[in-house]
Amino acid sequence: MFISFEGTEGVGKSTLIRKLYDHFLAHGQDVVLTREPGGTPLAEQIRALLLSVNHDEQMSHDTELLLMYAARAQHLQQVILPALASGKTVLCDRFADASFAYQCAGRGLSREKLQLLNDNFVSKMPDITFWLDAPIETGMSRARERGALDRFEQEKVTFFEKVRAGYQEIFEKQPERMKRLDATQTPDQVFAQALSYIDIE
Amino acid sequence: MFISFEGTEGVGKSTLIRKLYDHFLAHGQDVVLTREPGGTPLAEQIRALLLSVNHDEQMSHDTELLLMYAARAQHLQQVILPALASGKTVLCDRFADASFAYQCAGRGLSREKLQLLNDNFVSKMPDITFWLDAPIETGMSRARERGALDRFEQEKVTFFEKVRAGYQEIFEKQPERMKRLDATQTPDQVFAQALSYIDIE
Ligand SMILES: Nc1ncnc2c1ncn2[C@@H]1O[C@H](COP(=O)(O)OP(=O)(O)OP(=O)(O)O)[C@@H](O)[C@H]1O
Ligand SMILES: Nc1ncnc2c1ncn2[C@@H]1O[C@H](COP(=O)(O)OP(=O)(O)OP(=O)(O)O)[C@@H](O)[C@H]1O
Ligand SMILES: [Mg+2]
Ligand SMILES: [Mg+2]
Repeated sequence: MFISFEGTEGVGKSTLIRKLYDHFLAHGQDVVLTREPGGTPLAEQIRALLLSVNHDEQMSHDTELLLMYAARAQHLQQVILPALASGKTVLCDRFADASFAYQCAGRGLSREKLQLLNDNFVSKMPDITFWLDAPIETGMSRARERGALDRFEQEKVTFFEKVRAGYQEIFEKQPERMKRLDATQTPDQVFAQALSYIDIE
Repeated sequence: MFISFEGTEGVGKSTLIRKLYDHFLAHGQDVVLTREPGGTPLAEQIRALLLSVNHDEQMSHDTELLLMYAARAQHLQQVILPALASGKTVLCDRFADASFAYQCAGRGLSREKLQLLNDNFVSKMPDITFWLDAPIETGMSRARERGALDRFEQEKVTFFEKVRAGYQEIFEKQPERMKRLDATQTPDQVFAQALSYIDIE
């Protein structure tokens, strides 16, 4: 089973994944915890380029999108596909939906360009995607304590509102795959809601 | 005018570009000399990922292709398009044809994938492309003195034979744009042959 976790900054993705990871382990399941962009040494180097703040050179939107998919291709082929092939459960902190939400809905990049990258470079989509949804301010205030902001975190609230609307759009189009979790709840409540969608005893 | 230079390792691309650069300058033309992958600080960082040799993690072919286009998108938008817009001549050491020759003809990646990246992420192709053609061994023996080999240079001769065949394929399909130069000639002869295709006095 391939499960991805989506949502704007600080909504509690990593917190939920950790709980699910422990839960799977406790039930004797083989489980791999990974994240995007990143997940392999090379993909993490690409992540570093994507997140680093450089005031001398603006990253073009196309470049950002292509770097995301370069990291994703590497991650898929080195980590995700082999893990699934050997029967493991993969928990992935962000995946392809994040590109739609951030690059298309957020930055205004064409949906066709993204679709074409998905069709050609993403051979496997998650079986289930948990969208942790909460007002932008909720996540931001939770995340605020973490120090220096990366290139995405420096964006304005209006940008993240668009990202959230992007997730809403996917949710409406693919309700079988994407499950909305009310991320304003306590961590334990969010965890319980997620579990209700997974049959593991 | 946008001019690119293609060919397998060590055939003399950089040598010819340098001569043309001096020639353009001597004729009072505004000229920009650049290269791929690279050409901006960010794109050069992507280049470093592309060329670095890592024995612990194989780079997937998709990743290589997408990194190339990420660097190209950045280079186009930051350097090439602005230079052309302000009336400068751009001399570019390798461009999109190299992706076709190395990734498709060389590595066997699908031509459709490449075409689709070209159609969506390369808004401007060169006005003229000089293909410096010579037997693989000629370039290799010329380049051999330069020390440690990068990830591409470590490939076998059979790989470069395929790359050369890839350039031949482009040459046959687009003879108006691509001009074949006999790179077994002396540097001055190659330069004279190139000049014969450009009317600048
Ligand atoms: N349901 C919750 N209620 C209150 N606080 C929470 C909740 N979930 C997580 N937190 C806290 O909010 C902060 C951000 O949580 P977390 O790192 O899990 O979010 P995230 O979505 O992974 O963030 P990022 O997008 O930056 O990776 C942490 O300090 C975490 O302890
Ligand atoms: N026409 C030529 N005849 C003989 N030697 C040449 C010729 N052109 C270049 N050289 C020499 O061959 C070596 C490689 O040339 P150059 O660096 O120009 O090739 P290149 O195509 O740019 O190589 P690379 O693909 O590695 O960038 C240099 O030492 C150069 O001086
Ligand atoms: Mg997190
Ligand atoms: Mg050179």
